[in-house]
Amino acid sequence: MQWIEGGITAAKGYKAAGEHLGIRKKPGKRDVALVVSETLASAAGCYTQNLVKGAPLKVTKAHIANGKAQAIICNSGNANTCNDNGIEIADGMSALVEQYTGINANDVIVASTGVIGQPMTLAPFEEGMQMLAAALDADGGHHAAKAIMTTDTVPKEVAVEFEMGGVICKLGGMAKGSGMIHPNMATMLCFLTTDAAIAPVALQDALSAVVTDTFNMLSVDGDTSTNDMVTVMANGMAGNAETADIAPFKTALQAVCEKLCRMMAKDGEGATKLIACTVTGAKDESSAKAAAKAVICSSLVKSAFFGADANWGRVLCAIGYSGAEVDVETVDIQFQSKAGLLSVCRQGRSIPFDEAVASDILREDEIDILVQCHDGDGKATAWGCDLTYDYVRINGDYRT
Amino acid sequence: MQWIEGGITAAKGYKAAGEHLGIRKKPGKRDVALVVSETLASAAGCYTQNLVKGAPLKVTKAHIANGKAQAIICNSGNANTCNDNGIEIADGMSALVEQYTGINANDVIVASTGVIGQPMTLAPFEEGMQMLAAALDADGGHHAAKAIMTTDTVPKEVAVEFEMGGVICKLGGMAKGSGMIHPNMATMLCFLTTDAAIAPVALQDALSAVVTDTFNMLSVDGDTSTNDMVTVMANGMAGNAETADIAPFKTALQAVCEKLCRMMAKDGEGATKLIACTVTGAKDESSAKAAAKAVICSSLVKSAFFGADANWGRVLCAIGYSGAEVDVETVDIQFQSKAGLLSVCRQGRSIPFDEAVASDILREDEIDILVQCHDGDGKATAWGCDLTYDYVRINGDYRT
Repeated sequence: MQWIEGGITAAKGYKAAGEHLGIRKKPGKRDVALVVSETLASAAGCYTQNLVKGAPLKVTKAHIANGKAQAIICNSGNANTCNDNGIEIADGMSALVEQYTGINANDVIVASTGVIGQPMTLAPFEEGMQMLAAALDADGGHHAAKAIMTTDTVPKEVAVEFEMGGVICKLGGMAKGSGMIHPNMATMLCFLTTDAAIAPVALQDALSAVVTDTFNMLSVDGDTSTNDMVTVMANGMAGNAETADIAPFKTALQAVCEKLCRMMAKDGEGATKLIACTVTGAKDESSAKAAAKAVICSSLVKSAFFGADANWGRVLCAIGYSGAEVDVETVDIQFQSKAGLLSVCRQGRSIPFDEAVASDILREDEIDILVQCHDGDGKATAWGCDLTYDYVRINGDYRT
Repeated sequence: MQWIEGGITAAKGYKAAGEHLGIRKKPGKRDVALVVSETLASAAGCYTQNLVKGAPLKVTKAHIANGKAQAIICNSGNANTCNDNGIEIADGMSALVEQYTGINANDVIVASTGVIGQPMTLAPFEEGMQMLAAALDADGGHHAAKAIMTTDTVPKEVAVEFEMGGVICKLGGMAKGSGMIHPNMATMLCFLTTDAAIAPVALQDALSAVVTDTFNMLSVDGDTSTNDMVTVMANGMAGNAETADIAPFKTALQAVCEKLCRMMAKDGEGATKLIACTVTGAKDESSAKAAAKAVICSSLVKSAFFGADANWGRVLCAIGYSGAEVDVETVDIQFQSKAGLLSVCRQGRSIPFDEAVASDILREDEIDILVQCHDGDGKATAWGCDLTYDYVRINGDYRT
């Protein structure tokens, strides 16, 4: 497997576009992305666990219930959630895709991201869909990645190449958001495309497994959005046999999703640094996950890292209340970054360390918290970011 | 029941002191509180659920296992947690209380609050205990309340008077902290004293029930401290029969704890306002509690309230991921403060409202979020505060 240039259109047979249709007020801000596959593709999806679900999720679930999809339409600027006409709008978006691309409306993945409970109309789509469809291009992935951004400061695209069944396949993707909820229950969204041939059930299994280890281990602020969605399409144009062992695809999928996670965490609202917490030696994987997530989600840990303060006690404290079965008297903690590696806690007790060295390590923009338990061989990583003045500023006046 | 002046020494037969023994560096900052009862009292306690527990908690649990206590010693400035000599220090504190007051060391409630994993010695207690014991006074409650403060900006004391078994009884208390963890796994602590006569088992039952509805419904930052402790002593000096119906005591206890909760939430780190979320009409009490707590804990809700932004969608979103069984399509939401009452969401949908009115309501320093479900008669209130720049500042450089 190797990293390559590109994103959602890196794999064979995909075209994309991202244009300004007027859902967002800022002139020229691309606000609707369209992605199409040359052929009908296997499709799979994972969705938010929130009981409040955006209308687009309901429509998308129905459309890919048969394991097939051929297009994605996604707007930013309005989440189309808690609106009386939500389903009508999402259905209308699909119908317009059919009208201008010929792809069956029932094979369209629909997504929206933005403020919830804001009135929305179909008018901008009716007026702009022809122009959007005309802009579809095999090099259009970057425009699409920009069109789904909200408070993201950088577009998020990655792609890899891997061999499966003797054939070179590609997998690419784009994502937006910097947490479970970002910026205003406005969703983490991720769309993936591959030219590998993979049967729908195998595709769903692979996606569900990878999402559990990647996007479900990412938090910016602990809030779970109403519109979260991750989908993957596999159109088979690479030419591999669908019966091939898909292990190489799973490896590629894990790598792509992990990298998008890191990009989202680092671009978290107001964040100045990426924090990854890896727990090893836990009783089991679920304990490792609970502990890693609690550390990443702790407001006190996040604030301390913003201040480059080696306050390891907050890390141990978070592990202690995480619900993980951990013998806290045996926990070792280390901080690591490009600037070095430092032990700060051994067997649940403080050990002397050089504050200047600690400060150098914690001033870097990517930091690992390494937690070694002695209860088993459970292992997990969670990704997050620091809590900063800017997070409060952004979220204190987002809506008005 | 009526509110009266005073705190931990409001009830008959209690004396207290708070002096500077040198655990905290700032000259003159009172850092150790001592409270004694004239007679051996019934005692009960509730403790943090964190697996990492401060040494003082272990010692206190052992001391009141027999349902009896007669004194409290509590220092601020060091949590005495994750230290090799933690038990030794806590035992030593108890022994010094015995030496200078004559109260059996096994009847002493021991507590500490401050940074964890910091070396601690008994020396300041050895040098200062005589002076502290000499300062014990029936009017000393205020000094004690000051001595247990860390980043609290105001001391927290309340007292009430109530009739039980034909006798006037008093209940008073002091607390420190402004959240589950405050400021640095440095605990929420609350000590309560009454002159009512109440058997140990009944006292524990009453305390456990009230803590569930009050302190366990309070959050500043979602972190659970290693040193949280709530204890109550009942010395019987009011003269009521221990066999009296203790319903009036329970009412008083609920009122006292709820008021201390509100004081802690309002004095939350960096907080500019108290937020109380009351959920009614939930399927059951546990759903109501889960929903109310999720709203109060949401960083996005907290940031929006700091900015006086009527972003009700974040409230609904938090209810949706709270784990509560709620029909989100029937939820009504209102915001209320001294400035008025405003409906912002009906049946899970946006309704038009006047932004200027909303802003006036949300600019007050005590705000109620009223959530009406239509699933049953479960009801709960949770207390919290807004998330501000100052929270980040305080916690970004607390330790160093």
